[in-house]
Order: sequence, then structure tokens, then C-alpha cells
Amino acid sequence: MTKTAKPAQRARRPPNSSPETIDLGHLPDLVGYALRQAQLAVFRDFLRSFSRFKIRPVQYGILTVIERNPGLKQQHVCLAIGIRRANFVTLLDDLEHRGIARRGPSAHDQRASALFLTKKGEALMRRLRQANKDHEKRIAAGLSEAERKLLIRLLSKVKTSADSSDS
Amino acid sequence: MTKTAKPAQRARRPPNSSPETIDLGHLPDLVGYALRQAQLAVFRDFLRSFSRFKIRPVQYGILTVIERNPGLKQQHVCLAIGIRRANFVTLLDDLEHRGIARRGPSAHDQRASALFLTKKGEALMRRLRQANKDHEKRIAAGLSEAERKLLIRLLSKVKTSADSSDS
Repeated sequence: MTKTAKPAQRARRPPNSSPETIDLGHLPDLVGYALRQAQLAVFRDFLRSFSRFKIRPVQYGILTVIERNPGLKQQHVCLAIGIRRANFVTLLDDLEHRGIARRGPSAHDQRASALFLTKKGEALMRRLRQANKDHEKRIAAGLSEAERKLLIRLLSKVKTSADSSDS
Repeated sequence: MTKTAKPAQRARRPPNSSPETIDLGHLPDLVGYALRQAQLAVFRDFLRSFSRFKIRPVQYGILTVIERNPGLKQQHVCLAIGIRRANFVTLLDDLEHRGIARRGPSAHDQRASALFLTKKGEALMRRLRQANKDHEKRIAAGLSEAERKLLIRLLSKVKTSADSSDS
């Protein structure tokens, strides 16, 4: 098979084409597709670097919010990082069971609905922050610092647009 | 409580702070976090617009690849869009059961390992493409065309960096 195949032949590729020659149609020109592909690759790298701690990305978010806002209520942590309460309870149960975070009474509410890190959790967070720093460095290795900031700004615009369509 | 709280008070927020005042620490400055937040919002919009068709994002990717490359083998579709074979089989079974895609013998291989859209699948794809166009328009509503292209390019760089750390 030559590289100068006619258009009609290009449209009907032989079934043993190598993946490099597969026509992805309009997918590569979609923000939605580019976002998903980047997210999958980043997620894989995150899982690799955090697997030794048995911490999932969303749990890292939860721990960061608790560390920065000790005594915060469960529902506010959920809202802050945008996860459902049902999922949150399972994730937190795991962290509490492992002695990393704990539920306690808050100053305003005697029920155990306020969240804190334990000493063990604080020590773990120091290691997680370093692992996350390394992860972030790897995934942004191809970007200049200006591009990195720009990417975060553009992603924030996309989030705002997508959220505002939720009505 | 005044807005001019001292640093010591800021570090220990009252447990009933509203989510708007929650300190997210370094998260907002991370590509990984921005990516995840954008992806979640985009995913929700995608699910809303595609739920009436009972098609998941990854299935839309599969159908697009099959449409553009009729007769392509299963393993090449998996490689092209980066999903695992086990997951792929379940997703494809669903599409085949619903008469949208079909497995058939390929020119090179008598086993039914080549993939095609059915007539029903081709008709469905016309509607999905429009729904996806609307979805893409919504999520990119806050971006200029130059920013949209730039975002796709930056995301592609991130994917490349994250993938290359997989060793």
C-alpha cells in the first residue's frame, strides 16, 4: 500500500491499519476531547505517584481543604471541592479508619460534623504535598510558566461556562 | 465577625464558614486541580446533553472512530482512544445490543473482529454530532477562537508530558 492512496481509499481504511493512521474525525479539534485525553493521562500519573500512599486524587483535595480549614463542616468540604455527599462519606470513612482524619464536635454544633487532620494525617500531608509537587512538575514539564498560568486560566473559563449551562 | 480578622484567626476558620471563604491552599494554582475541576464540569454538561441518547462520552468517541474508519479492528479502536480492552468490550456489547454498531468479519480475518456502524448507528451519529457541537459551543462559550485553539494545544502538551512519565 502506497502513501499516495486516493481519497476514496483513505475513507475506507484497511482493518489492520496501525493506530497512528486512524482517522479521529473532528475529535482532535474539540475542547471536550482534548480535556478528557489530558485528564486521563494526568490521572494515570497521579495514581502512579500516589498509589504508595493509597490516596486517591479526590482524597488529596479533601485532605488539603481539611488541613487549611480545620474544623470545617463536612457539607462545606463537599461544596468546596464539588463532590457528592454520598461519595464523600465513603472517602472520609476510609481516611478516618486509617487514622488520617477525624470527625469531631465543632464549636457551634455538638454533633461530630467538623473535620480535622490527626497528627498522622499532618505528617502524611507533608509527604503528599511533595509527591503532588513532583506530579505537577511532570505534567507541566512541556509548558513555560506563562503557559502554565494561562492554561489554568483557560480551564477556569471552561469550568465557568460548563457550570453556567447547568440550569 | 469582622472582615479584618487577624492571620491567626484566618488560619482557624469557624466551622460554619460559607464555602466561598474556604481556603483551598495551593490547589487553585495546580494544573492537575484545574484540569480535574474543568473536566468534571464539562463531563456533567456532556452527560446532560447525551443522556437522552443513552450514550456515554467514551461511547461517542468509539462511534466516531468506527464511523471514520469502518472495518477497523477492536484493538485498534482501543488504542486510538486509549481505553482498556475489558472496558471496551462492555461498551461495545451495549452498542451492538442496541443495533447501533456491529462486529463483522474483516477482509483480512474471518473472525468477527472488525467494527462497523449499522444504518441506525449512522442516523444516530448525525444527531450525536449536533448534540456534541452544541455541547462544545457551551463549554467554550467563554473563549475566543484563538484561546480555544491555544487551550487544545496546551492540553495536548500536558498529555504528552504526563504520558512520557509513564515508564
